[in-house]
Amino acid sequence: MSYARPTIARIAGYTPGEQPTGRTFIKLNTNENPYPPSPAVAEALRQFPAEHLKLYPAPAADSVRAAAADLFGISSDQILCGNGSDDLLTIALRSFVDQGGGFAYTDPSYSLYPVLADIQGARKIPVALDENFMLPDHAAEDAAGATLFIMARPNAPTGNSFPKDRIAKLCREFSGVVWIDEAYADFAHDNCMDMVNRFPNVVVSRTLSKSYSLAGLRLGLACAQKDLIAEMDKVRDSYNVDMITQALATAAIKDSAAMREHVRRICASRDKLRRDLLAMGCEVLPSEANFIFVKPPQPAAEVFQALRERGFLVRYFNLPRISEYIRISIGSEEDMAAFSATCQDLFHAGI
Amino acid sequence: MSYARPTIARIAGYTPGEQPTGRTFIKLNTNENPYPPSPAVAEALRQFPAEHLKLYPAPAADSVRAAAADLFGISSDQILCGNGSDDLLTIALRSFVDQGGGFAYTDPSYSLYPVLADIQGARKIPVALDENFMLPDHAAEDAAGATLFIMARPNAPTGNSFPKDRIAKLCREFSGVVWIDEAYADFAHDNCMDMVNRFPNVVVSRTLSKSYSLAGLRLGLACAQKDLIAEMDKVRDSYNVDMITQALATAAIKDSAAMREHVRRICASRDKLRRDLLAMGCEVLPSEANFIFVKPPQPAAEVFQALRERGFLVRYFNLPRISEYIRISIGSEEDMAAFSATCQDLFHAGI
Repeated sequence: MSYARPTIARIAGYTPGEQPTGRTFIKLNTNENPYPPSPAVAEALRQFPAEHLKLYPAPAADSVRAAAADLFGISSDQILCGNGSDDLLTIALRSFVDQGGGFAYTDPSYSLYPVLADIQGARKIPVALDENFMLPDHAAEDAAGATLFIMARPNAPTGNSFPKDRIAKLCREFSGVVWIDEAYADFAHDNCMDMVNRFPNVVVSRTLSKSYSLAGLRLGLACAQKDLIAEMDKVRDSYNVDMITQALATAAIKDSAAMREHVRRICASRDKLRRDLLAMGCEVLPSEANFIFVKPPQPAAEVFQALRERGFLVRYFNLPRISEYIRISIGSEEDMAAFSATCQDLFHAGI
Repeated sequence: MSYARPTIARIAGYTPGEQPTGRTFIKLNTNENPYPPSPAVAEALRQFPAEHLKLYPAPAADSVRAAAADLFGISSDQILCGNGSDDLLTIALRSFVDQGGGFAYTDPSYSLYPVLADIQGARKIPVALDENFMLPDHAAEDAAGATLFIMARPNAPTGNSFPKDRIAKLCREFSGVVWIDEAYADFAHDNCMDMVNRFPNVVVSRTLSKSYSLAGLRLGLACAQKDLIAEMDKVRDSYNVDMITQALATAAIKDSAAMREHVRRICASRDKLRRDLLAMGCEVLPSEANFIFVKPPQPAAEVFQALRERGFLVRYFNLPRISEYIRISIGSEEDMAAFSATCQDLFHAGI
């Protein structure tokens, strides 16, 4: 007998990528950034007075919102801060989807989306990506009955970006909220931030976890028209972003130049790795993110395991349509050179 | 027209206590601690390497749980960490109460409880405290139909503690989960941590916000038998406690002696303020928390306003049964001496 709601008792919960302890791996499994955050973050940390922690933080993280508003060219009341974008995605389900209500999300995509549906007790409406892992033209039709539609752009784990005109069509045709999870947008050649002011039903979310090298800090940003932000703000915990995170996130966003330099290096390494792996006989999807999605010449599960034995953690999803692929996060230049050499050995030896 | 769920669109959300900017007030309104956190927290902050932030934190905050398990005399798998105890209370509703399901909570109590009910779309079942603001003997009967019962002990804003045998009776008679919010327990002469191992349906939650002087950091702890923790863990965001918070919270919990010394001083100031205000003709409820609940000789709303004009922020709730009271958080010895002198003037002058 369980005290939990039936919808909770019957699920397993989300499994995050492995955070190994003990043996040292080269971690290419959770899309972390190999470079440190901006020196301005280290400086803000050194300057932070511990005695300030006795007081509650600014409830709405005003300094973070002001810095992000400047960067994005929107106003502060169009921004909601979250304890990571996971917090924002949870707020999305709680704001827009009743228990038993429909929740649409692209498939395959971030494996958290269906878990959030289960926790909310929502009816899952996966919208299948086409044979090129693109958003289908008839996405709104596929999502009929849903009040929220979440997609990732660039998509995870495939790495590709959906065409903006197809997303705009969905925004016009779909009666609920269209949430564009832009966790990886800084690595892409364009983004959807302009759609926030074009559509009253669009939310664009960002995170400092990937491009800003701040996965350990937990800061996400949701951007939308202010009425939509106001509804989500009712669901947000009053003090969901702590005081140190507010100080460091503000410093990071104000120094987005440091972020862009790291992004430039990561994209160069990504494109080089893609060329290397193509030359080794892998299929490699075009990527606009800080990872690539690869179909190796040998079975993916075996390649995953062989890489692990050689000290490289990558991600393998034993799920329909993507079980022949591995996802490789882009590390430092040296790590990727070592990784390429190891792949060369592996595929040459036939594992 | 709103895109939000009807249950969200019709509510106003929670109003946290004022965090003033601009004019400097003596803040006695949000039960913050006037003393700084342990020097071990400042040291952990100084030692924290900013470059570690590029990686995700330990998902389940292992070091915090280990330190808390030592302190509480329970095992690590009986503890869930939250982004403040607000996060844990949200997890409680999501784990144990279906939309439309019954949620019981003591009344008057922490004003967040009914807001959480509205967000979840739960049916609110307030259980009225008796004429002495005590938990009634027939609480289980009053809560019929609920799957979760939350109370604060010591209670906020009244400051009193309910008898443990009455809570034990509720735990036996109530078929759902009994959640004892012990945010203020370090200021009380006893607590309910022992009930965690006595009852399979009890959760005891703690926070570092009050006694540990870490409201700005956001760290809450839920303690229960491990099956109950495992269910709540499915609802928790994977990385809900950031890396710096984990380091600082671990340091704070390991140095609970520093906390106890501040608690001792606050309790002495509290008891002195109570004597002072009684002598001025106030009614003052006995308190086991870091605040007192006071019925002044003049109307509470006017006293609240007069104190504000004189630079003291306290909390006033314009709610049934408690609109004749003000809640005063206990500040430093000097602040409380200044506060007493101001009250003396106010009440002498008849405002």
